[in-house]
Amino acid sequence: MSEFKQVALIGLGLIASSISHAMRRAGMETRITGTARSTETRAKAAELGLCEVFETAREAVEGADLIILAVPVGAMAAIAEEISPVLKPGAIVTDVGSVKRAVIDAVQPHIPAGVDFIPGHPLAGTEYSGPESGFASLFDNRWHILTPPDGTNPDAVKRLTEFWKSLGALVDVMEPDHHDLVLAVTSHTPHLIAYTMVGVADDLSRVTESEVIKFSAAGFRDFTRIAASDPTMWRDVFLNNKDATLEILGRFTEELFALQRAIRQGDGEHLFDYFTRTRAIRRGIIEAGQDTDAPNFGREGPSGKDE
Amino acid sequence: MSEFKQVALIGLGLIASSISHAMRRAGMETRITGTARSTETRAKAAELGLCEVFETAREAVEGADLIILAVPVGAMAAIAEEISPVLKPGAIVTDVGSVKRAVIDAVQPHIPAGVDFIPGHPLAGTEYSGPESGFASLFDNRWHILTPPDGTNPDAVKRLTEFWKSLGALVDVMEPDHHDLVLAVTSHTPHLIAYTMVGVADDLSRVTESEVIKFSAAGFRDFTRIAASDPTMWRDVFLNNKDATLEILGRFTEELFALQRAIRQGDGEHLFDYFTRTRAIRRGIIEAGQDTDAPNFGREGPSGKDE
Repeated sequence: MSEFKQVALIGLGLIASSISHAMRRAGMETRITGTARSTETRAKAAELGLCEVFETAREAVEGADLIILAVPVGAMAAIAEEISPVLKPGAIVTDVGSVKRAVIDAVQPHIPAGVDFIPGHPLAGTEYSGPESGFASLFDNRWHILTPPDGTNPDAVKRLTEFWKSLGALVDVMEPDHHDLVLAVTSHTPHLIAYTMVGVADDLSRVTESEVIKFSAAGFRDFTRIAASDPTMWRDVFLNNKDATLEILGRFTEELFALQRAIRQGDGEHLFDYFTRTRAIRRGIIEAGQDTDAPNFGREGPSGKDE
Repeated sequence: MSEFKQVALIGLGLIASSISHAMRRAGMETRITGTARSTETRAKAAELGLCEVFETAREAVEGADLIILAVPVGAMAAIAEEISPVLKPGAIVTDVGSVKRAVIDAVQPHIPAGVDFIPGHPLAGTEYSGPESGFASLFDNRWHILTPPDGTNPDAVKRLTEFWKSLGALVDVMEPDHHDLVLAVTSHTPHLIAYTMVGVADDLSRVTESEVIKFSAAGFRDFTRIAASDPTMWRDVFLNNKDATLEILGRFTEELFALQRAIRQGDGEHLFDYFTRTRAIRRGIIEAGQDTDAPNFGREGPSGKDE
């Protein structure tokens, strides 16, 4: 159970709405306040009963002992500046941004003495966005990474850890720059690549869009799901994790060129060896419980048959 | 119901074993004969009761009126040559290879007069291989593409179409070179890219393998599933669809470099516009019934919680 009396959700999209649902599922009686930039989102959130909706972040934060910034990374600095005067002593401010160094640079200067800022990142999401896209089990068995700066009150870290655990998450602590590099590998670069591949398909005049859509099941489908994620969020990720993403992209291009040359030269041995090596990582993920190994990988076939 | 009296499965991996299961599910009383290169696979197939198992392709094909070549593309020519003398008049030979022009070049010269060779490709698969990996619903609502050469007996095409429909598939007819280009976009290049990304992650000394595995849920997980597919099959795909794959890879690299430059220059508008455009394709795939739009995309969370 949460020991927080009032949690403020700033930004009411997929993550914040899932937090609200997961808090209710956990039986927390915490007061939930919140706000979002657009009138439409606020109206939707109120209609769904996600929280007490306020027009401004400052009003939503008033009295809160946990403040969760769930806005795109590029919007963090302005929000932090706005709420700074009303943060009450002993409160914890956290965020759910996909990069951590840039968020620390944006938010930390606005945090008053007596308040702890503990950056966080839930490794959970879908390709949907908006207040209606959340669901209570989003964080179940998914990692939530905290990157507390040196000198953070250990008790505050402990309280925030317990909060995320009660939403279903597994919690880990990491150094912010290392977080940004790890995520450049496991998330940011894969997303950029998926976006690129889907863009190529969209652009190719000799293969029609309806063919791409019709025959997507052969591998492309997973790319389209990744590439359907929120554009604003992802723009901000790349603008704010530039160095690590460019580094990993450089490695990626190098490897891709080696495989491309092997294809051009008909070097089957190189291809076979490479493809064999990558199988081992998959086994590790299954064993770590981060995906299913069902033969149909847990996906139900669509029900409507097109015949 | 199949009007074939005896179907021969050459190669007893994921696809052939799924064909056997799907034929049984459809209530076909067809005799199923088959063979595989390795003793171990033959023993496993016999144990599973997938078919009457023979030591050689020639024995398995004897008397069959439908022969399905379900071996890697690189093995097609030798098999076609071996079975050529025992193909009976009126029989249909088909295959399930992921490329079609190369298979036609490999197999067609060995097809005697009176026998129809109708190349085919089921757009269905998982990352598992071997006779124990098949399941009856693999082809349900998935496209099966036939690429009959000019002059193929239309009645034979019709019979083969009905066969695949009774296994649950949707059937389409396409020109072989166009098939190879479409698949280079929807399957072959995405697979190469996924293999590459997983290889990069595996190779990066500053991010440990256990970190990659632990935090894979953020996007990378889907790449690892794709990159866990059968290495022999995929080696043969790239060696045999070289031109189309290299063309699409060229386009991919061009687009990737443009996005990379946008990141380096902080051009948020370029990134946002690109990421917005790719969302539309995803909607098309959902509407076409080739994926689910469940919020958790039809994936069950792993059951064992690591706490």
